[in-house]
Amino acid sequence: MILMERVLAGDVKKHAGKKVLVEGWLHKKRLLGGLTFIAVRDRSGLIQVVVQDKSEVEKLRGLQTGTVVKVIGQAVDEPRAPGGAEIHEPEIEIIVPVEVEPPIEIDKPLSHRPENLDTLFDQRVIGLRNLDEAKIFRIRSDLLRYIREFLYKNDFVEINTPKLVAGAAEGGAEVFKLDYFGKEATLAQSPQLYKQIMVGVFERVFEIAPAFRAELSATTRHVSEVTMLDIEMGFIKDHNEVLDMLQGLLYEVLTRVYQEHADDLKTLKSPDLTLTAKFPRYSMKEIHELYQRETGVDTSNEIDLTPDEEKWICEYSKKNNGCEAVFATGLPESKMKFYHMKGDNGTAKSADLLFRGIELATVPQREHRHENLLAQMKASGIDPESPGFSHFVTAFRHGLPPHGGCGFGIDRLTEKVIGLGNVKEAILFPRDINRLAP
Amino acid sequence: MILMERVLAGDVKKHAGKKVLVEGWLHKKRLLGGLTFIAVRDRSGLIQVVVQDKSEVEKLRGLQTGTVVKVIGQAVDEPRAPGGAEIHEPEIEIIVPVEVEPPIEIDKPLSHRPENLDTLFDQRVIGLRNLDEAKIFRIRSDLLRYIREFLYKNDFVEINTPKLVAGAAEGGAEVFKLDYFGKEATLAQSPQLYKQIMVGVFERVFEIAPAFRAELSATTRHVSEVTMLDIEMGFIKDHNEVLDMLQGLLYEVLTRVYQEHADDLKTLKSPDLTLTAKFPRYSMKEIHELYQRETGVDTSNEIDLTPDEEKWICEYSKKNNGCEAVFATGLPESKMKFYHMKGDNGTAKSADLLFRGIELATVPQREHRHENLLAQMKASGIDPESPGFSHFVTAFRHGLPPHGGCGFGIDRLTEKVIGLGNVKEAILFPRDINRLAP
Repeated sequence: MILMERVLAGDVKKHAGKKVLVEGWLHKKRLLGGLTFIAVRDRSGLIQVVVQDKSEVEKLRGLQTGTVVKVIGQAVDEPRAPGGAEIHEPEIEIIVPVEVEPPIEIDKPLSHRPENLDTLFDQRVIGLRNLDEAKIFRIRSDLLRYIREFLYKNDFVEINTPKLVAGAAEGGAEVFKLDYFGKEATLAQSPQLYKQIMVGVFERVFEIAPAFRAELSATTRHVSEVTMLDIEMGFIKDHNEVLDMLQGLLYEVLTRVYQEHADDLKTLKSPDLTLTAKFPRYSMKEIHELYQRETGVDTSNEIDLTPDEEKWICEYSKKNNGCEAVFATGLPESKMKFYHMKGDNGTAKSADLLFRGIELATVPQREHRHENLLAQMKASGIDPESPGFSHFVTAFRHGLPPHGGCGFGIDRLTEKVIGLGNVKEAILFPRDINRLAP
Repeated sequence: MILMERVLAGDVKKHAGKKVLVEGWLHKKRLLGGLTFIAVRDRSGLIQVVVQDKSEVEKLRGLQTGTVVKVIGQAVDEPRAPGGAEIHEPEIEIIVPVEVEPPIEIDKPLSHRPENLDTLFDQRVIGLRNLDEAKIFRIRSDLLRYIREFLYKNDFVEINTPKLVAGAAEGGAEVFKLDYFGKEATLAQSPQLYKQIMVGVFERVFEIAPAFRAELSATTRHVSEVTMLDIEMGFIKDHNEVLDMLQGLLYEVLTRVYQEHADDLKTLKSPDLTLTAKFPRYSMKEIHELYQRETGVDTSNEIDLTPDEEKWICEYSKKNNGCEAVFATGLPESKMKFYHMKGDNGTAKSADLLFRGIELATVPQREHRHENLLAQMKASGIDPESPGFSHFVTAFRHGLPPHGGCGFGIDRLTEKVIGLGNVKEAILFPRDINRLAP
């Protein structure tokens, strides 16, 4: 073959009338009216190749989806073909022959995926080659990118904190333990303590990293490894400044992803975005009252919003405010963690961010006063001098300003942005109580 | 106090002649000629405040470094002060009093740090508030940013692969094991198998994430948790295309960090950058010969470059080529891992990237042919059907193109860029055989 530069499938149209070389995977092969059509997939998408010459058709005999090919042929405008072009009179070279059929169909839209998600995840390695599956993870990659770009602009420094730690920051039984050279280590459930320590250095920090929870529940919502965005910022007046920052972040990231991935989101049948730059803020009490007025159900004794209320208030706000993201303020003290700050009248200085029917993040101010923190730790049964906590306390002994922050799952965000039914669909290789591979 | 917007220390000069409000930490306090000078630290740096009024001086009595203060005063041009400005006639408010002295001095240059690194890391939580320590991690944060920006431009998609895995991709005993709901899981030593699988989806992928090695050695070079950059790219002609990509990445990232952090790198006494856009490539054989000619030491029987040779060839190339990054090609087959590709004459299709005297990364082409891979796995004693490997093999059975990639430690890169003596100094909270906290 002659020496030519590779052209991506998506760029073939630009070369119409010329000879081009493409490389990719055989994605589909079909016979139509005596002609063989093959779709070749590369990182930019698909290009259709019309194979007429018998010796070229012969090269493809017995070869299956996944076969790696090099094709040199004539680029031709063809509005009806994907990408608006085709390749005619191809000369085909088989780079890697594949002779077995794929274990899962990869040329159907997402709606045609196996109903049993176990099948989906068992065949994940090949299933991700479905163009629609891949779109999910391109969007996810760009969500991460947009998030970071917003945070850089706002003076946040990226940190990498250890995942092998001496104690369980979030407490509870749901922690993975392991032998660490004869000591017991746990896998970090969050970078909580470290990011607060780092406020003392940079004021504003963020981390995007894995976090681990030994979730015993086998539901759609529970995975044992998540990718978390954590942010923390100092010198705030109160938690409302953190809400403002988070609202700014989500507004920018979501409007950007809906602009730059408009076609993909349409293909994936994602819901339209209904968002205002300021997210409405309702107190828990107001939400209970609004909900009761509309549904007749009295939830005023719940310490939290019920799952149905979370759905309802997002719908309500979408309809009435044109915004499907909502902050629920005035959370009860009883929901507080030991490092949160108390507010007035039995509330915490905190709010929940709700988006499309679920709680995406809790956004509290932290208790930054050394003595108060010690008291809250003791009240929670935590020994401030234990190895997992003593360094955390040191940061406060030597001065931390008023600060606050939040953490939320990138998996969950991706799921809700695209409108998937299960958080695991937004994770390349999900981990749960039954799944440790692939 | 009156309602004013906060001004960052670094911006006070811009407001000279006006009243400003700054917030930050008391960093240093000293008496000079009957005046009290305090340095206030915030995320932008230091601002000097001249305190004359007795009642204001009194407010500071007994308060130590770390005290969180709000200062309102007159912004004054002062070329001799840090940032070129001072605040005069301050009104001071103590936000968080700190009454204990810091456990480690934080107002000295790096060269004055404790010689015993254990002291440094024991007091890390406060020690990071040293402005020079913080510079290291600002540079690190930007290294990550520049790396990602280069990769986005070159069509790489960011992936997040699981850290809880069923097998040990890199083999060996240095793997952390844990109980995963009754099964044995290991902590990923690298995303190697997953990133190769993902070549089948996106062609070009990268990940920046923690990796875990149960290193039994207590040396400066060994940590049990590192932050790794992993890249992998498909449809390459051979490993030289990966070398070109990596060289492009490092050239852009390093020249950029030396431009945008010129002052910080000077303060940190980092070495000057001596780099050309193309990194010289020498075969192992050439390096052995050059080294023997210069030193008289015959290393031709070594299967690898000796540590001294690695140092020497970087110096040699710096002097003769104006480039302190070098590729060592023609690596022997015996150094190969099971997923690497064999070259000619007992070599691997691979090269080592050397930078400032150490090996930063090995950059091989992968064996992409299913049958060859199976043979190499078996020769390495790996069962292709075992849970940790069967899905990897599936990706090849269904077609992977020629591909290659590399992974290297962000910690190590940061260490070498800044010219630190120990990789742990480039990690916020390092983990080694003796250290699991802070």
